[in-house]
Amino acid sequence: MNYDKIFDAAIDRLHTEGRYRVFIDILRNKGAYPNARCFHGHNGPKPITVWCSNDYLAMGQHPKVIEAMEEALHDVGAGSGGTRNIGGNTHYHIQLERELADLHGKEGALLFTSGYVSNDATLSTLAKLLPGCVIFSDELNHASMIAGIRNSGCEKRIFRHNDLEHLEELLAAEDPDVPKLIAFESVYSMDGDVAPVHAICDLSEEYNALTYVDEVHAVGMYGPRGGGITERDEAAHRIDIIEGTLGKAFGVMGGYVAADTRIIDCIRSYAPGFIFTTSLSPVLAAGVLASVRHLKSSSEERDAQHANANALKQAMKDRGLPVMDSTTHIVPLMVGDPVRAKKISDILLAEYGIYVQPINFPTVPRGTERLRFTPGPAHTESMMADLVDALAEIWDRLNLQVAEAA
Amino acid sequence: MNYDKIFDAAIDRLHTEGRYRVFIDILRNKGAYPNARCFHGHNGPKPITVWCSNDYLAMGQHPKVIEAMEEALHDVGAGSGGTRNIGGNTHYHIQLERELADLHGKEGALLFTSGYVSNDATLSTLAKLLPGCVIFSDELNHASMIAGIRNSGCEKRIFRHNDLEHLEELLAAEDPDVPKLIAFESVYSMDGDVAPVHAICDLSEEYNALTYVDEVHAVGMYGPRGGGITERDEAAHRIDIIEGTLGKAFGVMGGYVAADTRIIDCIRSYAPGFIFTTSLSPVLAAGVLASVRHLKSSSEERDAQHANANALKQAMKDRGLPVMDSTTHIVPLMVGDPVRAKKISDILLAEYGIYVQPINFPTVPRGTERLRFTPGPAHTESMMADLVDALAEIWDRLNLQVAEAA
Ligand SMILES: Cc1ncc(COP(=O)(O)O)c(C=O)c1O
Ligand SMILES: Cc1ncc(COP(=O)(O)O)c(C=O)c1O
Repeated sequence: MNYDKIFDAAIDRLHTEGRYRVFIDILRNKGAYPNARCFHGHNGPKPITVWCSNDYLAMGQHPKVIEAMEEALHDVGAGSGGTRNIGGNTHYHIQLERELADLHGKEGALLFTSGYVSNDATLSTLAKLLPGCVIFSDELNHASMIAGIRNSGCEKRIFRHNDLEHLEELLAAEDPDVPKLIAFESVYSMDGDVAPVHAICDLSEEYNALTYVDEVHAVGMYGPRGGGITERDEAAHRIDIIEGTLGKAFGVMGGYVAADTRIIDCIRSYAPGFIFTTSLSPVLAAGVLASVRHLKSSSEERDAQHANANALKQAMKDRGLPVMDSTTHIVPLMVGDPVRAKKISDILLAEYGIYVQPINFPTVPRGTERLRFTPGPAHTESMMADLVDALAEIWDRLNLQVAEAA
Repeated sequence: MNYDKIFDAAIDRLHTEGRYRVFIDILRNKGAYPNARCFHGHNGPKPITVWCSNDYLAMGQHPKVIEAMEEALHDVGAGSGGTRNIGGNTHYHIQLERELADLHGKEGALLFTSGYVSNDATLSTLAKLLPGCVIFSDELNHASMIAGIRNSGCEKRIFRHNDLEHLEELLAAEDPDVPKLIAFESVYSMDGDVAPVHAICDLSEEYNALTYVDEVHAVGMYGPRGGGITERDEAAHRIDIIEGTLGKAFGVMGGYVAADTRIIDCIRSYAPGFIFTTSLSPVLAAGVLASVRHLKSSSEERDAQHANANALKQAMKDRGLPVMDSTTHIVPLMVGDPVRAKKISDILLAEYGIYVQPINFPTVPRGTERLRFTPGPAHTESMMADLVDALAEIWDRLNLQVAEAA
């Protein structure tokens, strides 16, 4: 038994496949985002433009958010000092849970330290409470949902992405008396497509299944108050559990689920991933509270973001760049190879000061490696023109395929 | 299939057993901790003294920590905006990992969103990378280690708490060529006892097993630089993986592991719980950085805390209160029944303004329900006298057993 050899071999596999990850060393500039400083391979900070942040609406630098966090920092201090049950339940947590429940029109909500943990803890606990439960899971579900489903120890059926016929086939094949749960996302973040929420709810009603939707890439972004795709499509009341993050459009960190009181109380009382961990820092909770409240009443950031995303997609199409068929705020550009995707990303950073991370396996299937752009409300027209010019130049330099201009 | 009925029954079970948890609604007062405000059942904030926080050294209100967080908030904003690989790796994260690696004399360290996630993600991933791995786990290990071990899908052997003979028996029974991992804590937080670290390392060397130690309740608290029990006992170099939290003695939020580069790189590259989640807010990372640096060079907080813990234990013994045999900074008082433990805690809060949460199953075994006090450096002599007087009065009122005064 030589442990070192086994670990070395595990790392070598990544190098061989061209998917060993090197983290870029940056600091964003509050108030000037998407501008940031890059430390990587330079003698000191170099200015860059960030094109791949999930702080979609730049709420992480919004004055109301910063102010609320500063106030909490000075009022109650840095951390909560305990689990929710033992010393770490603050007034901010309670208020934020109320605000999130209201956002989704649900009776209750429950905070977690991240969206990942909210998926993992909720799915694994929920399914364990339902004896013999079978989980129906979209094949493109996020790693955190997959973790929760696997950790539940339940039977699972994978349905083809957004394929209602396949889902119905699998539902119909099960015993009607067995508990069932359909788990899916509203916005799929690597392709930018959207689930047919009402049609899935129709099936869930016909086959008496619970519904669980991950709205991580949609909360704050869709619906008149930022309640996500389920708000936009007026489907929230048909969903049993809505899950979201506080770290993307809301700009801070943390995760949650919203549901009726009964389900929330079960997760609160039985999920180890909720119970046995220091609660979210009150500073973060205060910041999110301000962010959620702001985005409930302001659509300005959402509108600007959507306009920029559409403009960028069009500009890429105009240059024949292989932008994928996204119907959302996400702008993915297909490359199809991990080494080439990394090369493009490296040139963009080194020569153009443009930061976009290549997306490779296991985040997306092998052979579909891509660049994923997330223009925010603060990306300017000239930043977009610079980006598209740079991409066109690199595509040309590397002899990559371009389509006929649209 | 009636889902509501199943969920209701799950909640009813908790009520029947007297362990349904009601969270107390508080806000701590920065700069005046352990003083806090309590909202629960009152028309407005009522002052209380907190006796059960895991912000052991009150670093959550330390001026250096607050200042560092405020600076980061204004420099880079609220959240990181991405995973470590995609847009969320900041200069703070890199510096903090270096600082933590140095704290434990290891080559590298890796940050997680919590101590819970660091245990779950690291143990499950590590064991999966080692084909056929058998994990040897102390029976009192924390829920997050249990989750990681279960989620690894490995064979596991549970050894009796701190029982070296039992551990050796189990190690000797396995094939010498099979990978092995011994997982244990340094300070067990509900009893306050300490693992025999060197003796466990002796066994790990004899049987060629990796060692994994959870130092969550020890980092910042023990050793000349706050490197934990492994630093105090000069055993850190004999341990393969040291795990810690940033949410207890360091006063903020987050978790980490420290190990050699090879192991860190494997976890970084393969653990879904590390890869697929928004990274720690840079504001938190900045705060922890200041906290770790301060506690590396100052022993004042540790010394004051240990003095207060000893004084409180003695004062309880003097009054015949059933304080448990803790050798650490933790002061547990045995009650042995969940309903009575809650009753004592309720009286303390309502009549004395003293907040200590009762600890019940599944945090401790049934029949060993207790109150767990964590005096900090800022608890005064008169607070301690008030606490012990109150406890003596309640013990008398409820006809609970007292021992002969020591
Ligand atoms: C679909 C989806 N769900 C959940 C998560 C996890 O959320 P968080 O980053 O808050 O852990 C992510 C990404 O990080 C995601 O893309
Ligand atoms: C022994 C032990 N390990 C790990 C954890 C989890 O750490 P965190 O609170 O940072 O999630 C805790 C408590 O919360 C603990 O007591």
